[in-house]
Amino acid sequence: MGAPVVLDAMGGDHGPAATVAGAVSAWRTHGVPVVLVGDRDRVERELRGHGAAGEIPVVHAEDAVPMAERGAAAATLTTSSLAVGCELVSRGEGGAFVSAGSTGAVVSCAVRGIGRADGVLRPALAVALPSLTGGASVLVDAGATADPTPAMVAQFAQLGAGYARTVLGRPDPLVGLLSIGSEPGKGNRLTRRAGDLLAALPLRFHGNVEGHDVLAGTVDVIVTDGFTGNVVLKNVEGCVRTALTMVAQAGIASPERLTEVARRYDPETHGGAALLGLRGTVVVAHGSSPAATIARACVVAHALAAQDPAAGIEAVAEPVS
Amino acid sequence: MGAPVVLDAMGGDHGPAATVAGAVSAWRTHGVPVVLVGDRDRVERELRGHGAAGEIPVVHAEDAVPMAERGAAAATLTTSSLAVGCELVSRGEGGAFVSAGSTGAVVSCAVRGIGRADGVLRPALAVALPSLTGGASVLVDAGATADPTPAMVAQFAQLGAGYARTVLGRPDPLVGLLSIGSEPGKGNRLTRRAGDLLAALPLRFHGNVEGHDVLAGTVDVIVTDGFTGNVVLKNVEGCVRTALTMVAQAGIASPERLTEVARRYDPETHGGAALLGLRGTVVVAHGSSPAATIARACVVAHALAAQDPAAGIEAVAEPVS
Repeated sequence: MGAPVVLDAMGGDHGPAATVAGAVSAWRTHGVPVVLVGDRDRVERELRGHGAAGEIPVVHAEDAVPMAERGAAAATLTTSSLAVGCELVSRGEGGAFVSAGSTGAVVSCAVRGIGRADGVLRPALAVALPSLTGGASVLVDAGATADPTPAMVAQFAQLGAGYARTVLGRPDPLVGLLSIGSEPGKGNRLTRRAGDLLAALPLRFHGNVEGHDVLAGTVDVIVTDGFTGNVVLKNVEGCVRTALTMVAQAGIASPERLTEVARRYDPETHGGAALLGLRGTVVVAHGSSPAATIARACVVAHALAAQDPAAGIEAVAEPVS
Repeated sequence: MGAPVVLDAMGGDHGPAATVAGAVSAWRTHGVPVVLVGDRDRVERELRGHGAAGEIPVVHAEDAVPMAERGAAAATLTTSSLAVGCELVSRGEGGAFVSAGSTGAVVSCAVRGIGRADGVLRPALAVALPSLTGGASVLVDAGATADPTPAMVAQFAQLGAGYARTVLGRPDPLVGLLSIGSEPGKGNRLTRRAGDLLAALPLRFHGNVEGHDVLAGTVDVIVTDGFTGNVVLKNVEGCVRTALTMVAQAGIASPERLTEVARRYDPETHGGAALLGLRGTVVVAHGSSPAATIARACVVAHALAAQDPAAGIEAVAEPVS
């Protein structure tokens, strides 16, 4: 069944109440082995509430990183559940790490504590965005590496394609390079060079896609640098919210009826983000995740961990400038 | 009244029928002097239809760049109405150029034919996006310069602030730098250096804004590089369209009722784009513009031309890497 998923019991708005219930569900319903990391007393009390004392292993961590902590400072607190959890994965005692803590803090701790997989130049954050066609497209990198080289972008595409195969069930995902203008060669220096590399890789490369393709379902994987990807991810959330608010303000529909659409793009509910390319997968579930969402994140992390993260990764040489 | 606005009579989906009517309206209603450039016979026939023969000067151009022509190739056709019009501005016979031709072709012709204003490192494209608060924010650069230096980005902010003052009537516009994370120093190499430069300039600098701020009305001017700006502009259009389509598909409101919101962000109607920083302002009206929109574009171009484009521009030195 593979190495267990290490779950941060302290992350998220609901703390151990949600995470422990999620761990029990992941194990009992989905057969995914989980190790809980956090305040032992609180976690074991929750486990007893589910009649699961002794059923899910617990590793004690003295501290918890507050949800408001967004940056790299979190990574310096070596006694936190984030740091202890990443350390377990780093030592090979877990195959993947799941947290509902703040994305910035989780990414910082994971990069520092787990380290890159062999052959991977930089990690990338992948987010699945619902598309107009009813499916979803993977946006990668959504914010882990702000200044990648062309070779890193080409690897992000491979990592994103692996995610699309494993999580979205696309056997041969179509990859598009986010740029300005659909013709090959349109873009900035980074995308022109990355486009040349992508065309030579063994993946199904669509060529360039543009900003309006992000939610259109044009491709399965939208690859970009972590700066553009993070701006686009937050722009998607803001634009959908603005459009729906304008609909409500115009009296066309009540805010309540629009909630269904709004929730698909709410950062709290669109499925979390996976940090790909480390020696152990990391999945960031949303802070507000209920137990079922935590369980789902564990299942996704376990599936991703079953891949060798470096297996699909070509050693990509930087092009000559 | 300043130098006349040079109007491409052949651009746009409706050709001289819309452009000539727009020129007549700009002159008669708004007092903006216009020179029409295009096929003399067709343009003069349209002018006679308005009883305006001899009232608006006409300069003949042998050719017209097709609307489907999006790229730099258009700039090589020196006998087109685009090239002849830009040449007039370059010679000082016009203060601004307006076209409803394809944005890519107009930008290419204008950069080649008109050239940069003194002190301006690179031109930038500015687009006013309606915001949730009922006003609008200027997105600059929306696609003219894909790989700017930090100093160029700092100048884009100044050009955008000039646009916000002149076109949006904001006497002291608030400028935000599009980045990832609101804290100073968050971003990529380009935004970190541009942020340092912006903080030292005599403009009201808000600091970083993020993707979700683009339509939120957080600032009057959102400054970014032309790659990110173009991706964001097209992403705004795509996301608004997707959100509204999802509302229609869910049966919450009919597509007809959503048209009002959709049109605010339709690339054909959100007010066109101004190419700032050349020796003569260039305004790109939308291909589908009716006469009233063409007239409005001439009024905006005339107002922008009355500023010295380089007046507000500081000589910004590149930071040491």
